[in-house]
Amino acid sequence: MLRIGLFQLNFVVGDLEGNLRRVLDGLAFAAEAGADLAAFPELAICGYPPEDLLGKPQFIADCRSSLEKVAAATARCAAVVGLPLLEEESGAVYNAAAICAEGDIIGFVRKAHLPNYGVFDERRYFAPGRPDSLFTVGGVSLGVSICEDLWVDGGAVNKLAEAGAELILNINASPYCQGKASERFDLLRRRAGEIDRPIAYLNLVGGQDELVFDGNSLVVDASGKTVAKAASFAEQSLVADVEVAKRPPAEGNADLGVRRHCVSETQAVARRPLSGSALPVDTDRLAEVYAALVLGTRDYVRKNGFSRACLGASGGVDSSLVATVAADALGPENVCCVLMPSRFSSGHSVEDAEELCSNLGVDSRLIPIEPAHAAFGKMLAPGFGDLPPDTTEENIQSRIRAVILMALANKFGWLVLATGNKTESAVGYSTLYGDSAGAFAPIKDVWKMQVYELARYRNALAGFSLIPAGVLVKEPSAELRPDQIDSQSLPPYEMLDPLARALVEDDKTPAELIASGADDVLVLRLAQMVDYAEYKRRQSPPGVRVTAKAFGKDRRMPITSHYRGSVQ
Amino acid sequence: MLRIGLFQLNFVVGDLEGNLRRVLDGLAFAAEAGADLAAFPELAICGYPPEDLLGKPQFIADCRSSLEKVAAATARCAAVVGLPLLEEESGAVYNAAAICAEGDIIGFVRKAHLPNYGVFDERRYFAPGRPDSLFTVGGVSLGVSICEDLWVDGGAVNKLAEAGAELILNINASPYCQGKASERFDLLRRRAGEIDRPIAYLNLVGGQDELVFDGNSLVVDASGKTVAKAASFAEQSLVADVEVAKRPPAEGNADLGVRRHCVSETQAVARRPLSGSALPVDTDRLAEVYAALVLGTRDYVRKNGFSRACLGASGGVDSSLVATVAADALGPENVCCVLMPSRFSSGHSVEDAEELCSNLGVDSRLIPIEPAHAAFGKMLAPGFGDLPPDTTEENIQSRIRAVILMALANKFGWLVLATGNKTESAVGYSTLYGDSAGAFAPIKDVWKMQVYELARYRNALAGFSLIPAGVLVKEPSAELRPDQIDSQSLPPYEMLDPLARALVEDDKTPAELIASGADDVLVLRLAQMVDYAEYKRRQSPPGVRVTAKAFGKDRRMPITSHYRGSVQ
Repeated sequence: MLRIGLFQLNFVVGDLEGNLRRVLDGLAFAAEAGADLAAFPELAICGYPPEDLLGKPQFIADCRSSLEKVAAATARCAAVVGLPLLEEESGAVYNAAAICAEGDIIGFVRKAHLPNYGVFDERRYFAPGRPDSLFTVGGVSLGVSICEDLWVDGGAVNKLAEAGAELILNINASPYCQGKASERFDLLRRRAGEIDRPIAYLNLVGGQDELVFDGNSLVVDASGKTVAKAASFAEQSLVADVEVAKRPPAEGNADLGVRRHCVSETQAVARRPLSGSALPVDTDRLAEVYAALVLGTRDYVRKNGFSRACLGASGGVDSSLVATVAADALGPENVCCVLMPSRFSSGHSVEDAEELCSNLGVDSRLIPIEPAHAAFGKMLAPGFGDLPPDTTEENIQSRIRAVILMALANKFGWLVLATGNKTESAVGYSTLYGDSAGAFAPIKDVWKMQVYELARYRNALAGFSLIPAGVLVKEPSAELRPDQIDSQSLPPYEMLDPLARALVEDDKTPAELIASGADDVLVLRLAQMVDYAEYKRRQSPPGVRVTAKAFGKDRRMPITSHYRGSVQ
Repeated sequence: MLRIGLFQLNFVVGDLEGNLRRVLDGLAFAAEAGADLAAFPELAICGYPPEDLLGKPQFIADCRSSLEKVAAATARCAAVVGLPLLEEESGAVYNAAAICAEGDIIGFVRKAHLPNYGVFDERRYFAPGRPDSLFTVGGVSLGVSICEDLWVDGGAVNKLAEAGAELILNINASPYCQGKASERFDLLRRRAGEIDRPIAYLNLVGGQDELVFDGNSLVVDASGKTVAKAASFAEQSLVADVEVAKRPPAEGNADLGVRRHCVSETQAVARRPLSGSALPVDTDRLAEVYAALVLGTRDYVRKNGFSRACLGASGGVDSSLVATVAADALGPENVCCVLMPSRFSSGHSVEDAEELCSNLGVDSRLIPIEPAHAAFGKMLAPGFGDLPPDTTEENIQSRIRAVILMALANKFGWLVLATGNKTESAVGYSTLYGDSAGAFAPIKDVWKMQVYELARYRNALAGFSLIPAGVLVKEPSAELRPDQIDSQSLPPYEMLDPLARALVEDDKTPAELIASGADDVLVLRLAQMVDYAEYKRRQSPPGVRVTAKAFGKDRRMPITSHYRGSVQ
């Protein structure tokens, strides 16, 4: 049996001092709990992902200094901690885990499989390592692996097991997307059974720019049964006892070239066994997404040095959901909703927004935009002459609101939250420098239909219409001209969302969608809107990634592109 | 002797139909010129870089269909053309060159060294190939290689030479940065000498989002002497005769596993030798940068379906240079300068801007911003109460100007050019949704001191003060409050530019700069400004990359980062 501490903590990118403190605190906690081993996530020393900070030689050197402080603080309880590791001779940098004990660095493990797809650019930064080390901890042969090395079938983890690892520790920084937690859970069960070894899986928790890490660290036994599980979307120091069976290396594997390091030979002193903490894996999709939005928003705001946020509340479902997420993330006392009706706003817009603010307990301010609206009208009249009104005039209203929000944010040190959803972003149904403006866009990766679902989910949780019923039943409208409703410009969201998702997330072309039965005029029009809106998306604020393909690092489309995918 | 046609053409990303036409036209031109071989750039079939278009299976299939049309059009003159190539069995996609002749695809070459640094993400898209084929064309053993395969010492090109290649053809999409053309020229000379073979080097030309390809295709003989050179920053169909010596494969290289394909065994019919066209390599730094700005701006505007652009002309050097670039790129008849003085603008601002417009022959419009400025003041007064004016009020003016420019652009179908330079972008000396707003920012990768140099260069070219002398001598100012000048907020640009460049382009930390003698207070303040402005840069428009590290794909910094690099 090995007692292992998994420190599912909220590390911060570049916060070497704070991250060091988190590791040292965890180490003390683990030692106190009588653990043999304390594990910290992938690149915990520097936070994940550090991106081009890795291009600074001093950054790599500073990480190494941090590691030396960690090593110096170790005693009987060993530490496994992730960091970027420079190999002086070759100049290569590895995504590594250091194993420390008794005041020393015992050895390193270097990540073998470097993800370079989706949001990941690890081949940009790291050289690939090999699964070439085993560590004896408390008499148990431990195979340490990093993130992707667990995911690859027949990969590093399998090789470590073949070489004689009796327990696999996998340290991660695995970003959330919908369904990811249960996907990981299935993988762990399958992999443990396949190698017939227990696996201790540690994930990071917290938001970092567009990514949010969901935690959900997990220990499974050799049959894949859950031994212990940490919380979703929250920090947790999980200490678990793992039963380990003796496993001599497979026949003929003596020459795998695996180095064996002894960390602590005999098992720890007798201690009272821990009770299990096998929480169920949370598979409620909406609860999971909502928690991701809250954590991602909170961490973006706070880690960037802000505490208060403002947003434009229109009485629509998008801004209502964002206000609710913001109130949950920052506390209602830290949120200000700005109501900015125009000459085209309906009466219920302001009423619904005011009811929402009162329900949430957030501050609200009313600033009608008419004076600026009239002024721009006058200033532009000579140039526009007799040309008929078009989206130009609509965009001006939206941009006036952005000027007001930014002015309040500048004056009071707030951060502006943009309220756009993924459907709008996909088809470009937004005003650049208008409603798309803001420092952070909490629901930018949420499709419109799911915006409604999340609003209803949060109301159910509240037990009353926290988001007023009127918001959920009214016809969606930008209210930028008399009697405007979204469906004048867009197909109904029930039709739009699945088609836009197929184009954006599934990389389908119009030709493929038409071949499978979609309306050709509609699909070609939508695809053109999606392509054409790329320039707007490129200037949009970051937001929480909750799907497997968000706009941003996941989807790197050229702005200039003549490909339409319409012929096949 | 082999007669070879190098088609340094402006291919467009995703324009499969147009690119096919460019290839077919080139092929006809080459056949007409009696060439043995017509070469087209890296990924010419789809344009470079196609980025995540490569994630669409239909896109890859459509590229293959294009190739088949190219092959069908070949006769005696062979074609070498770049495309993404799916290997059906493995599902791997390669950055490949197809060799076609007599109506058929003869074979493929797959890029071995995939750049995954700087602006490049090729490991995201492609599997690495091997230099495993030689092609006999006109009796000459030809080694075909792609871009990076030429740059790696002891890499694919060396292996092809060892295996018996008598001539190396290298097809490229090598983006411009300052000094890149002469760097490539040096490499070609060195590599040719080293392998003792002539090299025909073909580069793409044209702008694609932030990248601009400078052409500068070049044929060197086995001693590295220039045989023929194509233009800088312009399309050219270069046909050259290359003397090739017979080279049996090196001893013991019979087993390199290189497949030999015969394209055309005997040398072409006797023909009149071509005269050389060995232009000098252009090393005038300012001419080169200016040409890049013009081509990059023109291609962004036109390839995105626009013909006219507008910008805010303040009478300062940045907007004056952008207006000049725009007039050169699009024609003066397609540029509109909007003069938007505020209550704080000096008299000479409007005068200088008007003189510039008259010199350039571009349209100008005067729209004073006072009405909107007053309106916002009134609307925000109740909320701001007695708080003293600060940058909030300055930003409002800048944002009013953006609303006006965007309104004109929306109404008339123009594209807004942003006028910010790299120094501003580095330290965040700009207003988000204000002066940083626009579809394209021509000089965003030009440091402020170089903005002045380019303005003087362009004036020298014109032979008079095309950009008025007043613009070049006045103290830089944003004119957002009474008597404001940049040096109240920033150190003089002579000091600022080198320090900001060291932090941004050379990945130096404040600690390193201080250790090498820089003022610590200044450097720490600048570094904090650079870090803090990351959120603004993330929402800034694309612009022409002219340095080896532009903001954008070259420098992928987290927004949320606590690393300050101040301790060492």
